[in-house]
Amino acid sequence: MEFEEKTLTKEIIFDGVLVHLEREEVLLPNGKTSIREIIRHPGAVAVMPFTADGKMVLVRQYRKPLERTVVEIPAGKLEKDDTHPLEAAKRELEEETHYSASRWEEIETMYPTPAYLDEKFTIYLAEGLEIVENPLPQDEDEFVEVVLCSYQEALALRESGEICDAKTLYALLYWKLRLLEKEA
Amino acid sequence: MEFEEKTLTKEIIFDGVLVHLEREEVLLPNGKTSIREIIRHPGAVAVMPFTADGKMVLVRQYRKPLERTVVEIPAGKLEKDDTHPLEAAKRELEEETHYSASRWEEIETMYPTPAYLDEKFTIYLAEGLEIVENPLPQDEDEFVEVVLCSYQEALALRESGEICDAKTLYALLYWKLRLLEKEA
Repeated sequence: MEFEEKTLTKEIIFDGVLVHLEREEVLLPNGKTSIREIIRHPGAVAVMPFTADGKMVLVRQYRKPLERTVVEIPAGKLEKDDTHPLEAAKRELEEETHYSASRWEEIETMYPTPAYLDEKFTIYLAEGLEIVENPLPQDEDEFVEVVLCSYQEALALRESGEICDAKTLYALLYWKLRLLEKEA
Repeated sequence: MEFEEKTLTKEIIFDGVLVHLEREEVLLPNGKTSIREIIRHPGAVAVMPFTADGKMVLVRQYRKPLERTVVEIPAGKLEKDDTHPLEAAKRELEEETHYSASRWEEIETMYPTPAYLDEKFTIYLAEGLEIVENPLPQDEDEFVEVVLCSYQEALALRESGEICDAKTLYALLYWKLRLLEKEA
């Protein structure tokens, strides 16, 4: 089956601080045309930081699209100067939680919404956590509260709806598997 | 800690077929202001359809933002007339795979990207699959190929990068846990 959708015309709708929106007219495999609205994003990283006693370091912050606070694994977007996502992951962990980590493992790279968004992000596991004495400052418009959780406490936050985003729910399944493997 | 970001001004940037983009000036907890670019989306559903012999029904389609085909669990957006996400889930399963299911279970509702997108989607598990004789037609601009996978085959698609979106990688972890629980 031929799947490709060839771009016929491309229009830049909006070039914002974070979001870049394009509207493309595409030629479908059946010869018809359709419109694809595509959001371009620089990409991101997320971190599952485990403490020595088996807790995860999460962060609470206000998410304007949801008009409420959400508890998530630490994350942030790639900056122009990042040569590797791991660099961004180390920075975001330190900025948001004031922890550094001595052991890093790349777990998965994923697209949150490939239908209309080109964002991709890489999830890392971080261990060997230590508090940084003079941590990198947070972004000027970010207000983040650290939430240290056992697995059961994280499940309660999922139950209450405060943990509700895809990457953190992925992290909870990953955590459950990790606990089962340690038991086995 | 006070987290709320109050909206000072709101501007509608784009009102498209799928994507609606707003730009809000917000008052931060520290009294400063910032810009939030927010994409509004009607919401979506996704389905993990398991066959009686333990395979999953996946779909391959071209994703224009990535300029390539991706293998995903069946999914689609809510329509105006949907009274419940389950209705949309049944429709999307039938449209995309030509299967109906006799047993449905709601697994999780999640936000793919709460930083700048209000989309939320619900993942269902579907069992008791049967081929529908005269299935609902696919959307006019959708070209979808059914991919029936064992767990090992799905892992190979993850390895090759064709499985790469958050909801399907979540489904693979869910599947692994399900297999472990069946073993136990």
